[in-house]
Amino acid sequence: MLIDSLARPGTSRIVLAVVDGLGGLPRDGRTELETATTPNLDRLAGQSSLGLAVPVEHGVTPGSGPAHLALFGYDPLEYQVGRGVLEALGIGLDVGPRDLCCRANFATIGPDGLVVDRRAGRIPTERCVELCARLQDAARAITGVEVIVAPGKEHRFVVVFRGDDLGAAVAETDPQPWGVGRVPARALSGGAERSARLVDEFVRVSVRALAGERRANGVLLRGFAKVPRIPAFGERFRLNAGCIAAYPMYRGLARLVGMRLLESGTAWRDELAVLQQQVAGCDFVYVHFKETDRAGEDGDFDAKVELIERFDDEAVPALLGAGADVLCITGDHSTPALMAGHSWHPVPVLLHSRYCRGASGAAGFSERACALGDLGQFYSRQLMGLLLAHGQRLAKFGA
Amino acid sequence: MLIDSLARPGTSRIVLAVVDGLGGLPRDGRTELETATTPNLDRLAGQSSLGLAVPVEHGVTPGSGPAHLALFGYDPLEYQVGRGVLEALGIGLDVGPRDLCCRANFATIGPDGLVVDRRAGRIPTERCVELCARLQDAARAITGVEVIVAPGKEHRFVVVFRGDDLGAAVAETDPQPWGVGRVPARALSGGAERSARLVDEFVRVSVRALAGERRANGVLLRGFAKVPRIPAFGERFRLNAGCIAAYPMYRGLARLVGMRLLESGTAWRDELAVLQQQVAGCDFVYVHFKETDRAGEDGDFDAKVELIERFDDEAVPALLGAGADVLCITGDHSTPALMAGHSWHPVPVLLHSRYCRGASGAAGFSERACALGDLGQFYSRQLMGLLLAHGQRLAKFGA
Repeated sequence: MLIDSLARPGTSRIVLAVVDGLGGLPRDGRTELETATTPNLDRLAGQSSLGLAVPVEHGVTPGSGPAHLALFGYDPLEYQVGRGVLEALGIGLDVGPRDLCCRANFATIGPDGLVVDRRAGRIPTERCVELCARLQDAARAITGVEVIVAPGKEHRFVVVFRGDDLGAAVAETDPQPWGVGRVPARALSGGAERSARLVDEFVRVSVRALAGERRANGVLLRGFAKVPRIPAFGERFRLNAGCIAAYPMYRGLARLVGMRLLESGTAWRDELAVLQQQVAGCDFVYVHFKETDRAGEDGDFDAKVELIERFDDEAVPALLGAGADVLCITGDHSTPALMAGHSWHPVPVLLHSRYCRGASGAAGFSERACALGDLGQFYSRQLMGLLLAHGQRLAKFGA
Repeated sequence: MLIDSLARPGTSRIVLAVVDGLGGLPRDGRTELETATTPNLDRLAGQSSLGLAVPVEHGVTPGSGPAHLALFGYDPLEYQVGRGVLEALGIGLDVGPRDLCCRANFATIGPDGLVVDRRAGRIPTERCVELCARLQDAARAITGVEVIVAPGKEHRFVVVFRGDDLGAAVAETDPQPWGVGRVPARALSGGAERSARLVDEFVRVSVRALAGERRANGVLLRGFAKVPRIPAFGERFRLNAGCIAAYPMYRGLARLVGMRLLESGTAWRDELAVLQQQVAGCDFVYVHFKETDRAGEDGDFDAKVELIERFDDEAVPALLGAGADVLCITGDHSTPALMAGHSWHPVPVLLHSRYCRGASGAAGFSERACALGDLGQFYSRQLMGLLLAHGQRLAKFGA
């Protein structure tokens, strides 16, 4: 890729602050960001370059995986992270190239062998933890691979098969009805036969281990996926990159591209404290703020406004004090409270360095100001090129 | 394609109104659209998303074919509709995959066999109709294929050879000088030999049938083309699409991509009346308004202004009353009166739905306001993704 080939080491420090789900939609004419009182962001916007980033493609709503990979400079269509892997990352598993990951549910199977309840009555999380321990124990009977059973929330858990030659093209055992003991795991292509047999075997030992359970007497497995081969971020861009994130999935995504995970508490002030320490050797730091997305997902406009105000008040001064030569504040995607979910709308981008043309008389940091910004509209996967350029880390192209 | 793979059925209704040749260039500082008094469009613009669409590529002036295919979500470089096919569509012929289409002229051939006048003195259209009937009759001598001779305006007509294995790679018989009876139709590649022989034969029987004519004593054939294989619009985007258009070429283009042709009169009010009926089962309606383009082509700035005002007055209220969840008003390309022809200038786009960020204080609907719009500048072929997103008809990409 062009940017990779031009990247060269440098002494500048780049900070990429991702306010999850930052972009919004208006209520009474103003978006969450436009409604929030954000004196720090507004002042910074006046001294920065602004623009709008399209996460994947015009009109396309991304999940967190593709949205983050794009911010990290990867084409999200080229590098796709399967559901099983994302789920494993989300509960904090350390997955590698030999791992076949899948999402699993406890389910209720009737006496006729048909699925009665795909979610086993949404058993409580503590129960899930107990049952997973039981399955982990039962899985010792499976030889030739390591099996990891890790609980999630309520009826959800993750299974990882760690071994050689485990193709991911396995048909899901869900939601088709199936008979107890007659497991339909099926290879969808050559190279996945061994995986299918292992899944079969896992379901068999699980059902045996769950015998006597009234609700959670069966398991459904789906989203079989392996970790994609992703060229390492640090090598691509000649950066020593670190990640500060409280939530496992974002830590996992950062680790997928080879970033170093910096330990911090999960509160913003703990994360920001780590950033202040200017961790030795890290010349690129990705800092993630999750809560805004959650408020958007909940459809809670006011809560999102409040969190943006808190970000402005607590985080922006700390970000400005982190000794960054290049500071970028953006989101991975939009999560308008109005839609109570992710959306396709382009994401506001603020880029601050000594090489900015300056905002076009922007009155603040907002979707509107960014639509008029000097960076224009671009794809999120193009952001890394801009960050490296502002960090004086790209060689000239051609003579 | 990404959008195709994400498209899912929905209940929303999308209306795409194409004001042909909408974009313009300024006279005394204001374009046609900026000169026109358009209270309805201006009000709507304030509540909509605005942007500029590049029909094919920066600097590239498109014909109606590629411009429309792009609006319909097709890459106009990948799907090219040859001149012969466009001409056949333009005069209302129903062409299919077995048809080899070409444009033809009546011409004057001198006694030495050289072309004296490529347009046969621009014979009147009524004469063209008579002569085409004579050629249609004469073509019965050609066996093995069906030949359709259809008159156009003045000296122009269309010939369609309907049969199997008719390759389109035939060199044009125009404008090289040629001898009567020694027809130079020539296959440019294997697979077109049969076509070349048929063209030869057609020219031979035509010249014989035209013997005695003083002016129109010869025919010139060019633009040999077959209907391209285009994946159906409705299947790609999971839409039940209808077309309301008065002019044959636009109906033909819509039919090429598999849209249903909705019957209406040719006046705007008739077309709009059909739209109001919310034709059962149509969840995507393409409505075409031709006259603006014609005024532009005529170089008549004032006429184009007047037509835009009429559109604002007559069409916009009807479009707003058509029960659309997503309404898009745009052009297929720009036709500045100043240039008296199509141009490469990006086309104003107005997109209205409940998921719009809202215009950046747009003072109205104009090229200028669209250049500052929140949709930014994008390729026309990306519009469908936006329309589907606003209609809640795209699944999330990745998790």
